[in-house]
Amino acid sequence: MTSSAAEPIRWRDDHLQLLDQRKLPFEVTYLSCRTCRDVADAIGEMVVRGAPAIGVSAAYGVALSVREAAQRYGEQWFDHLDAPLTALGDARPTAVNLRWAIEVMRDGLNPDSPDPFAHALGQAQAMHRADIEINETLGEIGARYLDDQQGVLTHCNAGALATAGYGTALGVVRSAYAEGKVGAMFATETRPWLQGARLTAWELLQDGIDVTLVADGAAAALMQSGAIDWVIAGADRIAANGDVANKIGTYALATLAKAHEIKVMIVAPLSTIDLGTPSGAEIEIEFRQASEITSLSGAPVAAPGAGAWNPVFDVTPAHLIDVLVTEKGALERPDRSSIEGLFKA
Amino acid sequence: MTSSAAEPIRWRDDHLQLLDQRKLPFEVTYLSCRTCRDVADAIGEMVVRGAPAIGVSAAYGVALSVREAAQRYGEQWFDHLDAPLTALGDARPTAVNLRWAIEVMRDGLNPDSPDPFAHALGQAQAMHRADIEINETLGEIGARYLDDQQGVLTHCNAGALATAGYGTALGVVRSAYAEGKVGAMFATETRPWLQGARLTAWELLQDGIDVTLVADGAAAALMQSGAIDWVIAGADRIAANGDVANKIGTYALATLAKAHEIKVMIVAPLSTIDLGTPSGAEIEIEFRQASEITSLSGAPVAAPGAGAWNPVFDVTPAHLIDVLVTEKGALERPDRSSIEGLFKA
Repeated sequence: MTSSAAEPIRWRDDHLQLLDQRKLPFEVTYLSCRTCRDVADAIGEMVVRGAPAIGVSAAYGVALSVREAAQRYGEQWFDHLDAPLTALGDARPTAVNLRWAIEVMRDGLNPDSPDPFAHALGQAQAMHRADIEINETLGEIGARYLDDQQGVLTHCNAGALATAGYGTALGVVRSAYAEGKVGAMFATETRPWLQGARLTAWELLQDGIDVTLVADGAAAALMQSGAIDWVIAGADRIAANGDVANKIGTYALATLAKAHEIKVMIVAPLSTIDLGTPSGAEIEIEFRQASEITSLSGAPVAAPGAGAWNPVFDVTPAHLIDVLVTEKGALERPDRSSIEGLFKA
Repeated sequence: MTSSAAEPIRWRDDHLQLLDQRKLPFEVTYLSCRTCRDVADAIGEMVVRGAPAIGVSAAYGVALSVREAAQRYGEQWFDHLDAPLTALGDARPTAVNLRWAIEVMRDGLNPDSPDPFAHALGQAQAMHRADIEINETLGEIGARYLDDQQGVLTHCNAGALATAGYGTALGVVRSAYAEGKVGAMFATETRPWLQGARLTAWELLQDGIDVTLVADGAAAALMQSGAIDWVIAGADRIAANGDVANKIGTYALATLAKAHEIKVMIVAPLSTIDLGTPSGAEIEIEFRQASEITSLSGAPVAAPGAGAWNPVFDVTPAHLIDVLVTEKGALERPDRSSIEGLFKA
């Protein structure tokens, strides 16, 4: 179903299986989700992460909630979805794909269907397939912007693991690499969760693409050295004016790229754009517990008593983005009007 | 001997004791150095780190080499210092204080002294005391630049632990805090060695100064939030034109500070300035092994097979520095001519 080695989300027999990304790269195990609640918990605990992957997982969660409601309430199943779907939508606050996927799924449900679960599952699987196709389109469009043998730096993991497969930012890297356009591939380790070191490195190496890690603080020196032509990253939410919420550190890289005349590409499906969010200032940023900074793999790394400021995302203003790649085409220097245009096309 | 709680370097009876900074903040243990070779190894293995602390440790290392030579070669001791002092000087490549301290010590040795070791030890102890006094002066001068209740961000550890006591950048923080000028104190965790989380947080908390850690990648978002007025950091080497080599990530913070109209202060003793290095381009940057990025506390954290680009230092161009604080006074917007002036005063 996916053209990259990593398969983060799969339906097996009667349940959803999520590749447990907390255990990568050292253990490749799948967590089974048999209820909508299981899916919400898995999203909240970051078994699955990355906005598009969260969206597709949530779609399967809606299907599971339909099955549960049908088993319990029979023909009245449709009237009993509010509580589980609200809980599912609240599993993570920032990624707009989560609530988008739930709404699309809900809108597509047929209260009169003779087999509502089969119908809902079919919808989720269609969304899953569509996400992979969208990623392949993103990859193809984004790769056009790169010259030969470019130095590329990515942040966090916007890869197959963050999507239903292939990846957004790493989809562009995969496509560009296949065309000989990636001369050197760098990834930030991405503290505190180390998604770059754990996930991006793992999935690129699975595909035979060599990758060099840098500490987040070393990215500026790497840019100064002349090794980087492009910063390519994903997005968790894009506001109507083009401001981008993405993994903490993205704003740093975009600002540093500007200072070094390096181009910044953001790669995201249209479902990441929230026209209801006028600008980055209105994006709610999730803060997580200090222990993610003060400990690592459960072992303390900081002096006891130290606090931590631990936002999961930051907001990159639109003016720092050279190219925004969507499946409907790429926008150079995105702004409110060009983004609106994507939805009219 | 020091006005802060941390005592990184001490002479006990007949040997040097170095606080083993690799084990902080969880274990407070001292490593005993009885030979010059012990000191070189401790510097190379980062038992002690921070340019001024390395310099003072090396001074004791010279005294120990004098004792060894006197024991072995009697009155010819002075002719047998080349090999051990060369090895000592090669223990770390970037910190200029290391070679500076060895030279000052060597110049002060008296080949005709009746007790050459006692004489050399006295010299090392004088350098130790002088370093603390210099730090207190740096603290006092630097603190003058801060308004009341400022938000301060520091990087790595330029504190008591990085010096003979009190600290350079953290000396300014200590002095400013005592005067009510520090409203909120932030420290980057400083990957890969986590000196911010382990050392800076530990020594500030020992002195009752609350500190909030941020991932290195979060510093830009913290600046964007308006919480920071000053970035205050130390230096490992300052070139004649004012370019500053310091812990990897300093250049990132200085560039980001500029983009947010936040002031940058570098605090360092005159011994950190190397007039023989014309500019940052001539500073040799130490690279360390990839495993410092791909593992943590010996446990792998990255996908097996991933490489890493791991420079220990980066170079911040002089034009990004608002204030350079030395014991001979502070320079606003330091340049070649104002730096030369410091040495003439």
